[in-house]
Amino acid sequence: MIEERIQIVPGFSWFGKNIGIKDKTPDFGGILSDIPCQAAGVFTKNTIPGAPVIIGKEHLRNGLLQAVIVNSKNANVATMRGGIDDSKRICSLVAESCDIETEMVLPSSTGVIGRRLPMEIIIEGCKTLKQDFGKTKQHIEDFSRSIMTTDTRPKIASARIGKATILGIAKGSGMIEPNMATMLCYFMTDADISSKQLQEILERVVNQSFNRISVDTDTSTSDTVVILSNGLAGGVDIAEFEIVLTEMSIYLAKEIARDGEGATKLIELIVSGAQTEEQALLTAKSVINSPLVKTAIYGADPNWGRFVMAIGKVFQYSVNVNDLKIFFGEGVNRLMIQAEMLNRDEGPLDEISALLTKNEVHIEIVLGHGLYSTKVWGCDLTEGYIRVNAHYTT
Amino acid sequence: MIEERIQIVPGFSWFGKNIGIKDKTPDFGGILSDIPCQAAGVFTKNTIPGAPVIIGKEHLRNGLLQAVIVNSKNANVATMRGGIDDSKRICSLVAESCDIETEMVLPSSTGVIGRRLPMEIIIEGCKTLKQDFGKTKQHIEDFSRSIMTTDTRPKIASARIGKATILGIAKGSGMIEPNMATMLCYFMTDADISSKQLQEILERVVNQSFNRISVDTDTSTSDTVVILSNGLAGGVDIAEFEIVLTEMSIYLAKEIARDGEGATKLIELIVSGAQTEEQALLTAKSVINSPLVKTAIYGADPNWGRFVMAIGKVFQYSVNVNDLKIFFGEGVNRLMIQAEMLNRDEGPLDEISALLTKNEVHIEIVLGHGLYSTKVWGCDLTEGYIRVNAHYTT
Repeated sequence: MIEERIQIVPGFSWFGKNIGIKDKTPDFGGILSDIPCQAAGVFTKNTIPGAPVIIGKEHLRNGLLQAVIVNSKNANVATMRGGIDDSKRICSLVAESCDIETEMVLPSSTGVIGRRLPMEIIIEGCKTLKQDFGKTKQHIEDFSRSIMTTDTRPKIASARIGKATILGIAKGSGMIEPNMATMLCYFMTDADISSKQLQEILERVVNQSFNRISVDTDTSTSDTVVILSNGLAGGVDIAEFEIVLTEMSIYLAKEIARDGEGATKLIELIVSGAQTEEQALLTAKSVINSPLVKTAIYGADPNWGRFVMAIGKVFQYSVNVNDLKIFFGEGVNRLMIQAEMLNRDEGPLDEISALLTKNEVHIEIVLGHGLYSTKVWGCDLTEGYIRVNAHYTT
Repeated sequence: MIEERIQIVPGFSWFGKNIGIKDKTPDFGGILSDIPCQAAGVFTKNTIPGAPVIIGKEHLRNGLLQAVIVNSKNANVATMRGGIDDSKRICSLVAESCDIETEMVLPSSTGVIGRRLPMEIIIEGCKTLKQDFGKTKQHIEDFSRSIMTTDTRPKIASARIGKATILGIAKGSGMIEPNMATMLCYFMTDADISSKQLQEILERVVNQSFNRISVDTDTSTSDTVVILSNGLAGGVDIAEFEIVLTEMSIYLAKEIARDGEGATKLIELIVSGAQTEEQALLTAKSVINSPLVKTAIYGADPNWGRFVMAIGKVFQYSVNVNDLKIFFGEGVNRLMIQAEMLNRDEGPLDEISALLTKNEVHIEIVLGHGLYSTKVWGCDLTEGYIRVNAHYTT
């Protein structure tokens, strides 16, 4: 149902370009709708959110948006009153240039924290906006590249549902934890759905997708997921719309985890047999975030003990080791280990090690006989993460 | 007051040797008291504790111990009924060989999880115990080496208090988080203190020391801190004893953080100006555990924004960025940055970067005008951590 291929959504335009905020890579992009859109958004829980998050929430209050403007290389976070003014100013520049209301623009910024935006450069960059926007696939791709920071590739998904199209464009590769992430994601659709419905759907969708990926347990100050609906294609089956949007979001979330800083492997982890939904999720987070599990998977080391340790770190619930089973791989290739085997020095460790060398690793932890299960995604922890992050601002 | 130099505690003997559990490095060690000791212990909170932790708690129930027996290279965790039997068997072998009661022996094991102990080798190793034990500094050092796993050096502290001596020997360098750690620590003293008092003191001491270090947020299944008091030196000032034991424990805890897997720097972090003790501790843990902060410190990158992000991850408390100050360094060399400076592209970033190149990094985060503060220790995150942990069992 979902496609990686870019599909144009009628009534929207995009741009992405370099204005020289830091270097010569694309750093400024936008989305514009011909007409006002019903809109909804979910934002970071970080208590020190960026100025654009504060302004974005304000502008979304009436459920209407017509444009999104994004810069990378500078997050406009911890920039106090001045940062708020900068973000508002950018919205009004975009509004003026595109002949829409300032409150119809949602701003986003991603990059370094604590520095003021280079406003002169941005003001200059806004002058040609009208000509920059365009409706081709190339314009979509330009936008997707302009929002990247340490991402190694753009993240785009699209889907058709009846006569309507949904397009999603995301970025993110660090500060990613199952409470959103350093991530930005914009959905555009021509399906006709009210902002109230969009908000309800988006919250459920984010909880099943972007809130379930982890790169490094850090939580960004800029996380934003927004959806704009221009209604041009008319109504659609709402239930189906939610299913498709969930699928697209899981696809994009996995793309983010796969592109985690320094990551060589995507990890898909199911925890089942839990006594409660909370136990399933806490255990899944504990395992997917454990540096010792992540480094073991990097080394293709079937180190069962590290899973045991990470499972036991969920102090609220007890687990009986006798009941614990861990499955590696998918379908007919699934391999299982449990304490009993290892104690006898048995278990298909070499075969599991071979599975762990693949660039997608599937693991299911069965905790016991409970009825609850959950699924999360993450990545391995490698020297690459250290390299990317040891020298970022300087 | 505390000394790194080894001091012998009268009435105790030690040994450490290789019995070939995995390779030719020391892997088996013990502590023996000439007479029964008052004793106390604090153990891991992991819900899947090792068999020795289960047996150790049982044997400590009456507040008496006379010996400690430790093996490295195998943690005897997740080994079910058989692992429990192995641990008991080792205690009875030690008891038999040293002519004491089985219940007077506390067992510890550290190393790989999920494998049964090689009991034949251990039985063989117990045969010569009587001759192995000795009362020299060399015997103490041998013991300290026999309990090491990925540690790069032994961790020993000693102190005099009145006529009494306290000796502490610890190990640990990974799975270290402020809920104890993959750590073992044994204190021996000839001060005369009841097991009830020892237990109370030890719990407070551990909370101020070993519970405040972090290497990687992982929590070991084997953590054990034990103290044995043979009373030979008579009574001491209890308040002074607790102060000295706290100092020794902080010293050993810092030694563990400093020797964290792959670590190049010890980080001492104070969080002050908090509204509550909880806010101080949650914020300190969030910052000291943040992979992005840890890699920035590794790279000597004065990346103020990552501190802001980690502070904002404590969702329960709000922080006003205008009040936030971060100090780097100690005493007259302290340097401060805050949002206002950075927004103006000012701040002593080069000088802070120079401070961050040292192998001890001191940071104080002032959150606001609250009255609460706390101190924690951790280390940087480097390629070395990845190297050590990507290929451990295989």
